[in-house]
Amino acid sequence: MKYDELCVAAIRSLCLDITNNAKSGHPGMALSSAPILYALYTRHLISDPSHPNWINRDRFILSAGHCSALLYSILHLSGFNVSKDDLKAFRKLGSKTPGHPEYGKTSGVDNTSGPLGQGLSQAVGVALAESILAHSYPEGSKLFNHYTYCLVGDGCLEEGISEESISFAGKNKLNKLIVLYDRNNVTLDGPLSSSSSADQIARFQANNWDTIHVTDGNNVEAISQAIELAKASQEKPTLIVVDTVIGYGTPKQGTSKVHGAPVGLEDAEIAKKFYGYDYAPFEIPDEVYMVFRSTFAARGEKLYNRYLDTFKEYKEKYPEEANYLIEVSENDVSQLINLDTDSCPAEQKEATRISSGHILNIFAKKIKNLVGGSADVASSTKAHIEGEEDYSPTNKAGRNIRFGIREFAMAGIQNGILLHKGLRTFASTFLVFSDYLKPAIRMAAMSHLPAIFVFTHDSIALGEDGETHQPIEHLAMLRSIPNCNTIRPCDARETYAAWKLALEETSKPTCIILTRQGVQQVPNTTYSGVKTGGYIVSKEREKLDFTLIASGSEVNLALDAQKLLLADGIDTRVVSMPSLNAFDNLNKDEQEEVLGNDASKRIFVEMLSSYGLYKYASHTFALDTYGDSGKGEEVVEHFGFTPSNLAKRVEDILKEDSNND
Amino acid sequence: MKYDELCVAAIRSLCLDITNNAKSGHPGMALSSAPILYALYTRHLISDPSHPNWINRDRFILSAGHCSALLYSILHLSGFNVSKDDLKAFRKLGSKTPGHPEYGKTSGVDNTSGPLGQGLSQAVGVALAESILAHSYPEGSKLFNHYTYCLVGDGCLEEGISEESISFAGKNKLNKLIVLYDRNNVTLDGPLSSSSSADQIARFQANNWDTIHVTDGNNVEAISQAIELAKASQEKPTLIVVDTVIGYGTPKQGTSKVHGAPVGLEDAEIAKKFYGYDYAPFEIPDEVYMVFRSTFAARGEKLYNRYLDTFKEYKEKYPEEANYLIEVSENDVSQLINLDTDSCPAEQKEATRISSGHILNIFAKKIKNLVGGSADVASSTKAHIEGEEDYSPTNKAGRNIRFGIREFAMAGIQNGILLHKGLRTFASTFLVFSDYLKPAIRMAAMSHLPAIFVFTHDSIALGEDGETHQPIEHLAMLRSIPNCNTIRPCDARETYAAWKLALEETSKPTCIILTRQGVQQVPNTTYSGVKTGGYIVSKEREKLDFTLIASGSEVNLALDAQKLLLADGIDTRVVSMPSLNAFDNLNKDEQEEVLGNDASKRIFVEMLSSYGLYKYASHTFALDTYGDSGKGEEVVEHFGFTPSNLAKRVEDILKEDSNND
Repeated sequence: MKYDELCVAAIRSLCLDITNNAKSGHPGMALSSAPILYALYTRHLISDPSHPNWINRDRFILSAGHCSALLYSILHLSGFNVSKDDLKAFRKLGSKTPGHPEYGKTSGVDNTSGPLGQGLSQAVGVALAESILAHSYPEGSKLFNHYTYCLVGDGCLEEGISEESISFAGKNKLNKLIVLYDRNNVTLDGPLSSSSSADQIARFQANNWDTIHVTDGNNVEAISQAIELAKASQEKPTLIVVDTVIGYGTPKQGTSKVHGAPVGLEDAEIAKKFYGYDYAPFEIPDEVYMVFRSTFAARGEKLYNRYLDTFKEYKEKYPEEANYLIEVSENDVSQLINLDTDSCPAEQKEATRISSGHILNIFAKKIKNLVGGSADVASSTKAHIEGEEDYSPTNKAGRNIRFGIREFAMAGIQNGILLHKGLRTFASTFLVFSDYLKPAIRMAAMSHLPAIFVFTHDSIALGEDGETHQPIEHLAMLRSIPNCNTIRPCDARETYAAWKLALEETSKPTCIILTRQGVQQVPNTTYSGVKTGGYIVSKEREKLDFTLIASGSEVNLALDAQKLLLADGIDTRVVSMPSLNAFDNLNKDEQEEVLGNDASKRIFVEMLSSYGLYKYASHTFALDTYGDSGKGEEVVEHFGFTPSNLAKRVEDILKEDSNND
Repeated sequence: MKYDELCVAAIRSLCLDITNNAKSGHPGMALSSAPILYALYTRHLISDPSHPNWINRDRFILSAGHCSALLYSILHLSGFNVSKDDLKAFRKLGSKTPGHPEYGKTSGVDNTSGPLGQGLSQAVGVALAESILAHSYPEGSKLFNHYTYCLVGDGCLEEGISEESISFAGKNKLNKLIVLYDRNNVTLDGPLSSSSSADQIARFQANNWDTIHVTDGNNVEAISQAIELAKASQEKPTLIVVDTVIGYGTPKQGTSKVHGAPVGLEDAEIAKKFYGYDYAPFEIPDEVYMVFRSTFAARGEKLYNRYLDTFKEYKEKYPEEANYLIEVSENDVSQLINLDTDSCPAEQKEATRISSGHILNIFAKKIKNLVGGSADVASSTKAHIEGEEDYSPTNKAGRNIRFGIREFAMAGIQNGILLHKGLRTFASTFLVFSDYLKPAIRMAAMSHLPAIFVFTHDSIALGEDGETHQPIEHLAMLRSIPNCNTIRPCDARETYAAWKLALEETSKPTCIILTRQGVQQVPNTTYSGVKTGGYIVSKEREKLDFTLIASGSEVNLALDAQKLLLADGIDTRVVSMPSLNAFDNLNKDEQEEVLGNDASKRIFVEMLSSYGLYKYASHTFALDTYGDSGKGEEVVEHFGFTPSNLAKRVEDILKEDSNND
């Protein structure tokens, strides 16, 4: 097209200006990828800057988050709410143009990225969501028929999560997923060849992808044609490899020197001259805006309005479904479950993972847009919707997702589904493997996504599988993540509450921590107690001598110890504390009302690391070594987690205290 | 060979007996892989059961740890110190045959496994160590010339770490690495095809591997020939795909039902009949032992003795090198650095990552067998040995390893190098990405490996890269790992101490946490203080009113606040606490001597999560939200981490306390 060269030059120059002005940032990939995003936004991507949250817009998922200067430049030119002043505030405190893109902060930014590789898993999740939605509503493809584009760099494809993601996408034939790979062959430390010899085209093909190779990364038309071809794919996701030059046009092009530091005014001048671009810093000729207006913006506006008509017709034909979609389109399903009373779904001893399976299925009946699955341990975690099919290329309405033995991608895909909106999700594995996917929990928390993680087999009580499978420090890891609620229920009723809270949540992830082994139902457990984070489940008889705080299966241990202590004349209170994160939010008076006494007369009981338990208790009854292989009950006893040991411990503390008096 | 069929039947039957007797375990892959390990151990693997730690033995790295019953059976038959009683104690408390193999617990077990995929990265590390050692000693290939075998299942290859590992191995042409892939096409939740359509042969070829396909997993001769062929590879690692049937011979063969639960006596009988094996449970005919004795054990003994001769000759020719190897062969390099005095390597303000770079290079000169690298951020973490080359296929003596943007595999490979022994290592990335590799830190800790992790950019002070790159909860994550020492030094001298402690360590990993930004040198910092975990760096003047505890860059913040407080008549003490893990090991009196006062008169200062800081202080000055993008100093100030804010906070606490009196 007429102004292609000018536009690409303008974008590249803007990226140089932005990073030079910030005296910080990554010009390298911004310059190499400029023609790719230019081709995508002007020729293909469907989105309306006036309605940036339109649910059927094409998504652009940036995986290589350090390419943020380019994305912001494109968003500015495309008419999103990113002004020239915003570009000048790049990487400055309080700006909407932070160093790496942050979902929710900037109009037109469809995901948070920076930690490499995760964007690719998110893109897979977005594409999966589109596919599920298109097939789970009647004539759903009228409402959902968009593409998902993802820009990756060499680094994204070195990360292991890339394999998990592309393998999942290829198996599931997510044909509307198009990955644009800026192959500039340079990483932070030098040439890509010093760390990789992978043939990415062959690798993606091995994972059931179509591949297209564009040898000239400056050829906008060739890039555009490749995208056109990719859009036509009916059976496979597509990788478009675009050979580019990092830091294109600058004196240091093709080297790692231009990866992560501004090039400076002098080199920017040289580059702009090379582009034939003769404008002052941040000056952009009208023609460039005009091109974006007449292509991207005009197309988006037209198609958005057409979608409104389509939706109106759809609503007339399917009023119930249309209203349902409107209701859940912001990831809020709380209205769908607000009729539930605080009922206990189990009377007998039952593992909380079993209770969880029942409860999930109660909610799944009410929340039709709830989908999820497991990293190949659904049979054990019970995170499975009964009577529903697996999602597969031949059954795209399936609500059970087989993520495979790919914990990290599972969590990244879950984030992608939630970024898309329209569906709620859960993802599940053993607690010990939560550390395989922890970076994606952090991402969910930063991105304010209501992801739900079901982590089972939550202590040494899992038994024979031994230390490699017995979580110790994992609860500490999860509880310490900001904007994340980790709940370890002690029985079926608390498990019910955990699920309800997780589903009511709209802006942060929830981790539900469950036992493998059976637990007795605890009297007095309540939804409101779980919501509070910590509450009394067994009050002292007369005068409070000591408080036992516990979570999960250890609440029963505490209750048993309470009885022994009472027999010895020591009057204790048992507090169930399923969520430290929630309890932290109470004020000090509220906390002390629950806990009683001062901290020196409290003990926190968990068959897990003591790390972090001292906030509310001076004493802990915990485990700071690895576990062992053996029968669950024997392992538990071996490590001393018996009512009599706990009672003795409390008595010892009280004795020592009175000696010190 | 004559008794092949009998031997394989015996091994399979033993696996059935072991799991049935334990009433727990995974018979599925044990049955499918039996011919593979039989072929490997009887025809190829070189190891001497009487000298199980022989440094030049072939290594067998089990990646699919749930295949433990098979490994223990093979070790028993091979003459390792695994008795029939040990097999009968499978998965029982206190046995040397735990549910998943544990390094150090069982003779002949070369690695801990269970969490899938990690074994593959360890195998890459073992092969890398062999390659480095063979090329860094003069005529080193006389001392180091063994193979590394690894058994993987379908699950291992779904995990992302598998891609990182094979990509690294292919690039580095680790031709003595041979991966045996038991392709039984079934995972815990069902057929592999429901989660994967990957063409693994094409995928490995794309990563520069040789591949061999054995279509009949019961053909011992074909498997053996494939291994023979693989051993001859001069340029590439080799994948041997062996098509097998999970749970071979049992009524439930070929299904996930036989993956993770014993088949029961009845089905075991049916299977044994199918194998034509007519012996009582745990009964093994002499011929089977004889085969292992005459092949595996005889070969191992002969070659071990030959190695002794070789080593003797080598020692005569290269006494210094031979003695060095003896000295470091148990991963203990403490004698090499015990001459260093407690000297401060910097006088001026300096980022601790910069100090670390200098210090690493001081030690690297003394410890010639120290190798390491970074996940593509060596330029930023300064974890680079100056004047030394990169390891590469053309320079196998290179001491700097380019791990690529593969954090998890980096850590797994480091574990493998340390499992091999003969080298010490370091691995490095930004602190925020420690969560990409956390599962491998846990593995190092469980395996008692002295891995060293250098994590830089340790707080919001890193600035412009924003919340995605600013660690908050990561220190809590690391500190909570059992048997791991996390050290966050406050200046160059403490950084020196951290490195020295890390290198003196022989049985646990150390994480060294470093700043991006410059820090003032702190008076009174000492090696012994860092070793203690926490110690006084600035004592109160007269009467202790309050204690400020801090680590890393916040020690200076505390010292500045101390001055402000003194001006207001409040006399405080500043404690530097670089290692909570070490401090935890002091007794209570020792701790209180350092901390003074009671906990209510102490505040813990870190620009990171408060989670876990309440153990030694009732108050924290910390950060429980995500950071922000902006200039480092501005972000720090924005979140309130200024001396005056800290001083005011302390004054408020004291005021409130006196009001409550």
